[in-house]
Amino acid sequence: MKLPSWLGAAQWLPGYNRQTAAQDGVAAIIVTIMLIPQSLAYAMLAGLPPEVGLYASILPLVAYALFGSSRTLAVGPVAVASLMTAAAASEIAAAGTTQYLTAAILLATLSGGFLVLMALFRLGWIANLLSHPVVSGFITASGILIAASQLKHLLGVPLSGHNLYELSLSLLAHRDQIHWTTLILGGSATAFLFWVRRAFKPLLLNIGFSPFWADLTSKAGPVLAVVVTTVITAWLRLDKDGLAIVGDIPGGLPGLVMPSLDMTLWQQLLVPAILISLIGFVESISVAQTLAAKRRQRINPDQELMGLGTANLASAFSGGFPVTGGFSRSVVNFDAGARTPMAGVFTAAGIALTALFLTGLFAFLPKATLAATIVVAVLSLVDIPTLKHTWHFSRLDFTAMLITVLGVLGFGVETGVMAGVISSLALYLYRTNQPHVAEIGQVPGTEHFRNVQRHDVRVSPRVLSLRIDEALYFANIRRLEDQIYDAALQRPQTEHVILNGAAINHLDASAVEGLLSLDQRLHDAGLTLHFSEIKGPVMDQLKRARLPEQLSGNIYLSHFKALEDLAPDCLEKASHDLQGNNTPVS
Amino acid sequence: MKLPSWLGAAQWLPGYNRQTAAQDGVAAIIVTIMLIPQSLAYAMLAGLPPEVGLYASILPLVAYALFGSSRTLAVGPVAVASLMTAAAASEIAAAGTTQYLTAAILLATLSGGFLVLMALFRLGWIANLLSHPVVSGFITASGILIAASQLKHLLGVPLSGHNLYELSLSLLAHRDQIHWTTLILGGSATAFLFWVRRAFKPLLLNIGFSPFWADLTSKAGPVLAVVVTTVITAWLRLDKDGLAIVGDIPGGLPGLVMPSLDMTLWQQLLVPAILISLIGFVESISVAQTLAAKRRQRINPDQELMGLGTANLASAFSGGFPVTGGFSRSVVNFDAGARTPMAGVFTAAGIALTALFLTGLFAFLPKATLAATIVVAVLSLVDIPTLKHTWHFSRLDFTAMLITVLGVLGFGVETGVMAGVISSLALYLYRTNQPHVAEIGQVPGTEHFRNVQRHDVRVSPRVLSLRIDEALYFANIRRLEDQIYDAALQRPQTEHVILNGAAINHLDASAVEGLLSLDQRLHDAGLTLHFSEIKGPVMDQLKRARLPEQLSGNIYLSHFKALEDLAPDCLEKASHDLQGNNTPVS
Repeated sequence: MKLPSWLGAAQWLPGYNRQTAAQDGVAAIIVTIMLIPQSLAYAMLAGLPPEVGLYASILPLVAYALFGSSRTLAVGPVAVASLMTAAAASEIAAAGTTQYLTAAILLATLSGGFLVLMALFRLGWIANLLSHPVVSGFITASGILIAASQLKHLLGVPLSGHNLYELSLSLLAHRDQIHWTTLILGGSATAFLFWVRRAFKPLLLNIGFSPFWADLTSKAGPVLAVVVTTVITAWLRLDKDGLAIVGDIPGGLPGLVMPSLDMTLWQQLLVPAILISLIGFVESISVAQTLAAKRRQRINPDQELMGLGTANLASAFSGGFPVTGGFSRSVVNFDAGARTPMAGVFTAAGIALTALFLTGLFAFLPKATLAATIVVAVLSLVDIPTLKHTWHFSRLDFTAMLITVLGVLGFGVETGVMAGVISSLALYLYRTNQPHVAEIGQVPGTEHFRNVQRHDVRVSPRVLSLRIDEALYFANIRRLEDQIYDAALQRPQTEHVILNGAAINHLDASAVEGLLSLDQRLHDAGLTLHFSEIKGPVMDQLKRARLPEQLSGNIYLSHFKALEDLAPDCLEKASHDLQGNNTPVS
Repeated sequence: MKLPSWLGAAQWLPGYNRQTAAQDGVAAIIVTIMLIPQSLAYAMLAGLPPEVGLYASILPLVAYALFGSSRTLAVGPVAVASLMTAAAASEIAAAGTTQYLTAAILLATLSGGFLVLMALFRLGWIANLLSHPVVSGFITASGILIAASQLKHLLGVPLSGHNLYELSLSLLAHRDQIHWTTLILGGSATAFLFWVRRAFKPLLLNIGFSPFWADLTSKAGPVLAVVVTTVITAWLRLDKDGLAIVGDIPGGLPGLVMPSLDMTLWQQLLVPAILISLIGFVESISVAQTLAAKRRQRINPDQELMGLGTANLASAFSGGFPVTGGFSRSVVNFDAGARTPMAGVFTAAGIALTALFLTGLFAFLPKATLAATIVVAVLSLVDIPTLKHTWHFSRLDFTAMLITVLGVLGFGVETGVMAGVISSLALYLYRTNQPHVAEIGQVPGTEHFRNVQRHDVRVSPRVLSLRIDEALYFANIRRLEDQIYDAALQRPQTEHVILNGAAINHLDASAVEGLLSLDQRLHDAGLTLHFSEIKGPVMDQLKRARLPEQLSGNIYLSHFKALEDLAPDCLEKASHDLQGNNTPVS
């Protein structure tokens, strides 16, 4: 059996055997049980009928198994992508309409297409524009927003809005309409799920469960909540009392769906679809890499793009909505012993059987229970410690994070993530715009040069030695040029300026122009500009720009050599001749 | 006399004396003679009545003298800003209408206001977003576009369009309507001006002129062309034959103009006004710095923003259009001996006298002559050698330049410069996205480590030593993480990975997260991650992020120490103990 190498399955399918199948099968049963309530809940979060959640959990898993590169990633509907789907689709039509479903399916199509294009043109680096503070702030704020959006199901009031402000106003307007049966049932389910998450696992460990079974049993909490509340609802017919239930779910497998070809709709949904794919990809690949490392495997980012892209296309063509790799689900899959993506295929089969034969069981499932599982799941996304760490680490990073959080909470998911990306780029440029420049002097008796402000070093009044700790490019060269020129002119005895280039990693054309213009300005002012310790690749660049020929001064292999040449009287001879110190660093 | 320090004039006005006044006066006479035809020509280029060019050359010069920081910069209308004014104003109304003039005045108001805001909030670094290739490509393409736009005056046909494509179509449509008198007169003036520029100065030097007077006389070429063609036109009444002339210019000084407060107009013109200010500032400050260096003076960028900002506001309130520092005019001012900005005040007086008493002299001045002076002036902006150098220097820089050139020529000035800025930022991110990582080994017998691909060095099979030549941040950390992880796993014997940080200039929060995640992944795969030679400021950052406590390995002061600890058997003992090599670089 020979599979083409662009198929991710080529890595594992040829050697597939019965023993691996057994391991994958066990994992698949556990993931299926976990995925059924999740797929119903995230469809509800996305504003879609429950069966759409099931559809998004069948074919996408098979597509990912064929094309993806992670052995254990479990794809399907996830909270953040569902929220983003709801935000984008509700711009097109009201939830519950055919137009709304069409929009959700088109979002999956466009996300899938965009991910596949990224894979084919090796554009995975675009996802790097999402910095860690932006992603982290985005996830935290989305968690809060998702929890707030579920209040409508927990209180039984018709809230609307895509940011905290709109949701709060809506809550105020409807504060008299709280439905008490819903609140009691939803509140109990939420409290139970919190208890399971916090206290149930230690309890199980105490009474002698193995860590593996304790973990797995505590993760079955949502299933238990679903079963118990469904039975209570059906028994007491709480739906007659006004409790919202899932209702009849049409049974059967999804049919083939042709996504809309309406170009106006494409234009409206393209940006949200790109954002959904990028966020989904970033989240998914970090889960995949974490799990792969535990078995010394590797993830190929391009293959991963292909896997997620085809999964979304498969979701679209079977009437589903955007999917990606889910964190907790993948961890369960991994812990339950999945060895290959065949576990995903088995899970898909499990969900397909559910769609065929078990949908009737969910008719009396209260929406409040699904909302409770969502709230408890997403509150773990809210990551306050990272906010604190980022504040301590760097004000610039924290600013980008804060802009993202406030953007998401105040204006919605799309505006928030865009504001975050733009501000993190602007802040990075602002940072590199202020290069660290240190005046350096000789450590007496050595060939070493150190920051005059941190060390006791020798300096010549006629020579200004500066070390530049930054790659030079258009956004910082003008300021640096002024900085060096001013520093030189402030010391009236200065005749020579030597720039130590050991930490200059690269240059662009603006930087070369700036250095030549600095040389010209210094020359006009009666000073000479030199360089020292330029690295190999940077030296190649300078030669290509013919800088050495145009420079008024010289380029020295070492800073010591430069001072030997320009101000030997101010040097203290090194006690040893150091070997190899003059070789340029390449 | 005590002036506040935020006034640029505080630097020179208190010590002003009769001798300096005499030097400034001589320079002012020469600049005035040069500026009269230029101000008329650039008003025509901007699609405005000729007197507006004179108005823009009076009060702005006085404002700049008070607030600017350059001693010799000559501000006033310039070619590129005039073209940009025409492009923006013609989006609002047709040239010649009151609305068009209102738009031009508002452009000066908004540019001035934006420059003053940049000065007050120290936002001059925004101008750094214009990389050298983008500015250079922009100026070259603008020169071509300006020359093409003047064909209508040289051929006497009514061309229209704001990019080469529209202008070419327009030329094709009007190809039968060429006015031969105009073409002959305009062509002769152009040929004469080219000859003066190329051959006249060497001739004057040959017949014994001093370089100073030869240069100055050859720069009076446009004045001579204006006088001769005006006299010929008036004498032969060529205007009756259909030759376009400047016509009656209303004499007198400009009155106080209140710029429009129409908010819709503000919104439409804000982006063009920002672009005009940024391009004007970048061009102006590079001229100012070049000239300042020749006299060992310095330019304060914030003061310069204030000078140009108030000059534009002064232009607006006296009915003018956007102004900035002109290159050739400033060089003439400098060479003619101007010592202080008082020369600008004297020039303003000269233009004011012209506006009061001499406008009648320009009635018979052919527009074709003005077009000829513009064409000859702007073709010197076209800089093909820089295009070639940039191609040889770096394909990335060349790409940004080419996008700018094609953008300006194909879609007009605004689209061109925006495309240039966005592409140069994207290309910079692309560049830093691929950090240079070198495997390093010991130079035998020393404590030095060099690239294994360029040098003959010793490597331990159990330790992978990598030097990272890039600051680490969100846009490159994910790729780097994968690169290091893959490199480590490709060598099955590897137990330790040491990252040499001598060239890591800074980190952000994403980079720290990435390094910790890399450590986790390597740890899960049975490897240990270490660092060596981290610089002082970067070490401070790592400590703030608590990385040293979380890292599976150690942080070594020198790479040699790291290998002494991890693989002493694979080191060749250094022949000398090198002094000071273990001090961390700060």
